[in-house]
Amino acid sequence: MSKRQLSLNAFLMATGHHIAAWRHPDVPAGAEVDFKEYLRVARLAEAAKFDALFVADGVAVNLESAGSYEVAARTARASYLEPFTLLSALAAVTERIGLIGTVSTSFNEPFNLARKFASLDWISGGRVGWNQVTSNTLAEARNFNRDEHLDHALRYERADEFLDVVKGLWDSWEDDAFVRDQASGQFFDSAKLHELNHRGKHFQVKGPLNVARSPQGYPVLVQAGSSEAGKEIAARTAEAIFTAHQSLESAQAFYADVKGRLARYGRRPEELKVLPGILPIVGRTAEEAQAKYQQLQELVHPQVGLSLLSGMIGADLSGYDLDGPVPQDLPETNGGKSRQALLLDLAAREQLSIRELYLRIAGARGHWTVVGSAEQIADQIQLWFENGAADGFNVMPPWLPGGLEDFIELVVPELRRRGLFRAEYAGTTLREHFGLARPENQYALQRQQRAAS
Amino acid sequence: MSKRQLSLNAFLMATGHHIAAWRHPDVPAGAEVDFKEYLRVARLAEAAKFDALFVADGVAVNLESAGSYEVAARTARASYLEPFTLLSALAAVTERIGLIGTVSTSFNEPFNLARKFASLDWISGGRVGWNQVTSNTLAEARNFNRDEHLDHALRYERADEFLDVVKGLWDSWEDDAFVRDQASGQFFDSAKLHELNHRGKHFQVKGPLNVARSPQGYPVLVQAGSSEAGKEIAARTAEAIFTAHQSLESAQAFYADVKGRLARYGRRPEELKVLPGILPIVGRTAEEAQAKYQQLQELVHPQVGLSLLSGMIGADLSGYDLDGPVPQDLPETNGGKSRQALLLDLAAREQLSIRELYLRIAGARGHWTVVGSAEQIADQIQLWFENGAADGFNVMPPWLPGGLEDFIELVVPELRRRGLFRAEYAGTTLREHFGLARPENQYALQRQQRAAS
Repeated sequence: MSKRQLSLNAFLMATGHHIAAWRHPDVPAGAEVDFKEYLRVARLAEAAKFDALFVADGVAVNLESAGSYEVAARTARASYLEPFTLLSALAAVTERIGLIGTVSTSFNEPFNLARKFASLDWISGGRVGWNQVTSNTLAEARNFNRDEHLDHALRYERADEFLDVVKGLWDSWEDDAFVRDQASGQFFDSAKLHELNHRGKHFQVKGPLNVARSPQGYPVLVQAGSSEAGKEIAARTAEAIFTAHQSLESAQAFYADVKGRLARYGRRPEELKVLPGILPIVGRTAEEAQAKYQQLQELVHPQVGLSLLSGMIGADLSGYDLDGPVPQDLPETNGGKSRQALLLDLAAREQLSIRELYLRIAGARGHWTVVGSAEQIADQIQLWFENGAADGFNVMPPWLPGGLEDFIELVVPELRRRGLFRAEYAGTTLREHFGLARPENQYALQRQQRAAS
Repeated sequence: MSKRQLSLNAFLMATGHHIAAWRHPDVPAGAEVDFKEYLRVARLAEAAKFDALFVADGVAVNLESAGSYEVAARTARASYLEPFTLLSALAAVTERIGLIGTVSTSFNEPFNLARKFASLDWISGGRVGWNQVTSNTLAEARNFNRDEHLDHALRYERADEFLDVVKGLWDSWEDDAFVRDQASGQFFDSAKLHELNHRGKHFQVKGPLNVARSPQGYPVLVQAGSSEAGKEIAARTAEAIFTAHQSLESAQAFYADVKGRLARYGRRPEELKVLPGILPIVGRTAEEAQAKYQQLQELVHPQVGLSLLSGMIGADLSGYDLDGPVPQDLPETNGGKSRQALLLDLAAREQLSIRELYLRIAGARGHWTVVGSAEQIADQIQLWFENGAADGFNVMPPWLPGGLEDFIELVVPELRRRGLFRAEYAGTTLREHFGLARPENQYALQRQQRAAS
């Protein structure tokens, strides 16, 4: 058997992951709504044999992290292409790379979501993944008929039921249901069609879905929450988990935690890929990398940095001295609980001022920033990969396309020399890239089990 | 000024518009979920300089027109690609042709819909249109948390408010809001950002949309209802109306009716394009056309024809003699009211049996079927176009791609010889193809009006 291989996704946020990316002189103006620029990035990642593109999303201009429109106006996060339309367009002009889209369970109907993913899986020949999020901002709730956000527990309860419904809909048709016999006039075999007839607390959905079961059965299920509820949903149903860690120890603890929960659901550790985020700033030398990083950091406006930190930590920090310590006694938040704890822990451990903390997270929004030469970055990736911290990474280019080009040109060849990353795609679907099995249709499986007993 | 030009859309339903299309020996098996087949059709239509592709849709396996799964299993309407994903993929591999998608106002959230259309308008460079429908089947309602369908009046009330919300969201940003000044760090001008703050009976949406105002301002607004409520919405807001007529007189009356309503809303007749459906069966001779039609009609299973008719007319006809007259005293339906009246009128006028009526509509689902040589079909198109019945047509190929190839190879050159249809695209956006103005942003307009007064 061949050596265990890294998975690498290119994580896309419009002009790049760093908050000041759009001000980088190499970033084209208007890239955030220019399909040609997204396509350029997709083709780079595909030529480098990345597992997938991973598209971030939100359903509002987020004033909770920006604080005000005046602050938001200094960032490039207020306008970008929507994931289903973007990934569908990219599906038509790429061949092998996976396409993972972030879509909320709080502000969509399961029938619509199940149908779009099934359709996109057909269009792309089985390359689709779904990053499930529950949407944690008030700004999003206010675009969907609410004055207040759904409570954290209720969001996860809805997400849980949502997933049951969409998985049921994706099994509406057995794989061989469509016989398409022109001579007899039989298009499908109605014995292989299954109504869902779901009646639950949040949803009532009869089915069947009006799309045949897709090449992958259903999209690769990705989960991004690191709260207790999020980890439990991931253990039960997710096939990949996207997570944020600043240190090897933290990543190892998380990795052991979620992998350890799988057995309870009759699953094996390799059925869930753990993919931390990494924001790499790569130079031909360590010094060149530091200079690149410095160039970006200097473009961060203090107002933006402070607002971003306040948003992520779930408390208004504008009353504090920027060069004083980060207060540890903040109120608990209804948003991402795990994020506040991570940030407070980091500030305490390294004794960071508010300014120093916001400059840390301005780049990577709580993710792991690694600045160095190709060898140094490959060393870190290898360390995490070989020591129970990661099965692969969501690579977050600091700016686009340059930050991704650097990684591909310098780090990827180094990973290949070490035998850690593919030189060619072996399969054609995202499941094959990730080494995940194609799920069997639950009704077909039940019939096989009945026949065998 | 150049001669008034026809608009032609290629109306797409998976394997073709005729109910038995999938059984035609030239239709590839599996075309309904094969993106390559949709792309083949799109490229044919674009090479012929059609204004747009027009994609039909529903959000259920529709048992109301099929009657039962056993009947539905004899048709190819149970599985096909979803419009947003399909049109986005086609946008990436076409250059000029418009892309009109059918999307329901009853089972979507306005923020999600506004955002996807804005994104797709960016991706396609301004080629998008939205065919608004309210969804009239119980099967659809049951996939979206309901036991009963929304009442006709309530659906239209919701549709009306929905449209106000999405138009407001599309104006969230003025066209020049994004300054993207890398040096000063100003990405947008917050004075050109407008929150919607809509609070209505059906929706509460704060905005702004997180996509910049798109190339066309907003998609071309297409409307398909022919009921009183539908015509009034069309007169107020639609830019194109898709309609079904079996005779010149009926089409003329409809054309005069809707054009006559426009002045009430301060609009001119040319701001609304009237586009009836036409299902053309073309031969090199009239006899060849009749033979092609006969070949298709013979593939219609009686059970399918009867169920289809029952579904369209809104009453169960299975208890009646197939070769007896169509009963005229049917109960009024909550679905498409105008459709029942059209069908009863046709049956009475031509004294059709139930079988004859279902064979009429099996082909074109209530639309105008024209069987003949290229000259005969061009004559009919010209007659309607020049006599106040149509500004263009939704061309419904009976099977795909052959039925479209026939029309393009034989009828389109004849229309060009008569000076009725373009030989090249003059513009790049769907609005330009249709001769429709780009709408101004409502907030910018208000400011101009204030400055002028």
